[in-house]
Amino acid sequence: MGPGPSDVNPRVLAAMARPTIGHLDPEFITMMDEVKAMLKAVLKTNNELTMPVSAPGSAGMEACFVNLVEPGDKVIVCQNGVFGGRMRENVERFGGIAIMVEDEWGTAIDLAKVEAAFAANPDAKILAFVHAETSTGVRSDAQALCKIAQANNALSIVDAVTSMGGIELDVDGWGIDALYSGTQKCLSCPPGISPVTFSAKAVEVVKARKSKVPSWFLDTNLVMGYWGGSGKRAYHHTAPVNALYALHESLVMLLEEGLENAWARHNLHHQALKAGLEAMGLELLVDEADRLPQLNSVKIPEGVDDAALRSALLDNYSLEIGAGLGALAGKVWRIGLMGAGCTRRNVMLCLDALENTMRAQGVQVNAGAADAAAKVYQG
Amino acid sequence: MGPGPSDVNPRVLAAMARPTIGHLDPEFITMMDEVKAMLKAVLKTNNELTMPVSAPGSAGMEACFVNLVEPGDKVIVCQNGVFGGRMRENVERFGGIAIMVEDEWGTAIDLAKVEAAFAANPDAKILAFVHAETSTGVRSDAQALCKIAQANNALSIVDAVTSMGGIELDVDGWGIDALYSGTQKCLSCPPGISPVTFSAKAVEVVKARKSKVPSWFLDTNLVMGYWGGSGKRAYHHTAPVNALYALHESLVMLLEEGLENAWARHNLHHQALKAGLEAMGLELLVDEADRLPQLNSVKIPEGVDDAALRSALLDNYSLEIGAGLGALAGKVWRIGLMGAGCTRRNVMLCLDALENTMRAQGVQVNAGAADAAAKVYQG
Repeated sequence: MGPGPSDVNPRVLAAMARPTIGHLDPEFITMMDEVKAMLKAVLKTNNELTMPVSAPGSAGMEACFVNLVEPGDKVIVCQNGVFGGRMRENVERFGGIAIMVEDEWGTAIDLAKVEAAFAANPDAKILAFVHAETSTGVRSDAQALCKIAQANNALSIVDAVTSMGGIELDVDGWGIDALYSGTQKCLSCPPGISPVTFSAKAVEVVKARKSKVPSWFLDTNLVMGYWGGSGKRAYHHTAPVNALYALHESLVMLLEEGLENAWARHNLHHQALKAGLEAMGLELLVDEADRLPQLNSVKIPEGVDDAALRSALLDNYSLEIGAGLGALAGKVWRIGLMGAGCTRRNVMLCLDALENTMRAQGVQVNAGAADAAAKVYQG
Repeated sequence: MGPGPSDVNPRVLAAMARPTIGHLDPEFITMMDEVKAMLKAVLKTNNELTMPVSAPGSAGMEACFVNLVEPGDKVIVCQNGVFGGRMRENVERFGGIAIMVEDEWGTAIDLAKVEAAFAANPDAKILAFVHAETSTGVRSDAQALCKIAQANNALSIVDAVTSMGGIELDVDGWGIDALYSGTQKCLSCPPGISPVTFSAKAVEVVKARKSKVPSWFLDTNLVMGYWGGSGKRAYHHTAPVNALYALHESLVMLLEEGLENAWARHNLHHQALKAGLEAMGLELLVDEADRLPQLNSVKIPEGVDDAALRSALLDNYSLEIGAGLGALAGKVWRIGLMGAGCTRRNVMLCLDALENTMRAQGVQVNAGAADAAAKVYQG
């Protein structure tokens, strides 16, 4: 129940352990087509350039920036947590100019500030932001942000690492131009793969580059020879065969459940967890309207020894919860309810473990957490 | 029995299917230390910067070039197959100047040409070459090439994707400065991870860069915060937890067998395969002195329908062999004897399958292949 990797369903682990076959084997090519089709369904897009990058989410981020940013390009980057800062690093390392729009950690991106940044920089080429900030548990309004980008004739790059599969995400409906995600959050697949998608407009921008993409491994022009279209596949790199078996199975499971049902499940268990935490006297960091159900930032109460508590949860309950990052280190816990880990069993375990461990540290905790959570489940 | 991914031992697949735990979990950190120690043993190096890049070999290649090449740097690149060409792409995409030393595909790198390239370019900063060319089955003299680099005050970058675990490789003894490999060849681990190592001299060069590394994901300065030294690990990216379980198990198995024993096993089965192929009347592409035991390029005889034969092997024997690449497409097969796939059983299967399938195509094939191979095993 940390910020990811989340628990992996045994079906996905079993798929991953199937015998490795060749990355150009006809059976594998068929599976690649299925992975692409399922990624499109989960991301709600018809983008032809939709595929899993053969590396973790950070490489998916880099795939978006390295292909779309050329030296001198202005990119408006929203930062309201750790990952906006990483976006800035990407922009600058590829020769772009990052125009930062900063919001306090734990709050959503302020649309008015983004409008103002475009007003001051009408030549900005790209707007980049994080849909679901894993470092704080905040959801920003991706649809509204993409609309602002479109109104200003800019492309949008969206970090959907933690949102995909956990909350609503609609690539074509919202007009997202480039998006990267991760397998180890709400898809509940082992980490190591990053689904990405590029709109036709974004593909045109990549094709019209004045300079070569400063990466051979992530150049979409090359990778699409292997993942693109139908028919003959050209060798680019050796795909991580078993990791893709796992991704395939996790997408099958998500579509069996149904996207909307998965989003509803994340919300239900979040409501139960929240009710239990509040019954104990704990507070959530993020305003209710902007909360992610899959990542709950909880303020650490007075008198708690943070590191000792997290160690005790791991040792006594085999339960991982996340520490605060950056400005929030020592101030919050980050409790994940992601994918296969988003269950009633985990909610009740977490409430019980927190209650008992805080009491063992001599901290005053109100009773009634389990009852409050159970009431949510009774509806 | 293609050019990789090779067959994966069930022990490694079972390790990969263990439950996913956190990438900062104390148990996982302990395993990371073991992976590093075993990589050092297998590569015969004390380099502190020795770690698995969280992506396939192509990303390991990019990790070496993106960190060491700055705009304007001259890099002498040896090309005697596909992967030298990919090195050139890397050099040029990072602003370097590639000075190409070309040898015919299927032959080893000519040391005299490399000496001449340094004589003409005494300011070359790096010599880059492929130790074991997977596209042709050629071994070049890595020790002699590194000596030439040292004599010219240049760093060496070595592609050891197919050599690691299959033939002698001695990073410290040969004075290699930067090396990348892959998991899916003679380590017989699923594809997706690339072991790399950088000498102290190479690390100094990275630290003294005038420009930032044009990749956030592959910047060794950052990655080492997670993989480096002992003690506290800083979050960089989410490591591919299950893929590292698999790498750990494959390294345990290789060290159980013993490096020298593994090299001898690769040579033994290569000799048996060769004896069988020659008994059939087939010819190997590469001169005996330069042959890789783990990748056998076999000239396709007159009258054989290459694609139909490879399909028939796959359909009738569940046997994959590799097609020729680039200039060798349609002219050779590439038969892998790598790691867990390098067994007597596979040698005999391959000889039998080739003999019968060629005969079914109406091609004249001499009898006695199985006997000739068995004779090698009898010693």
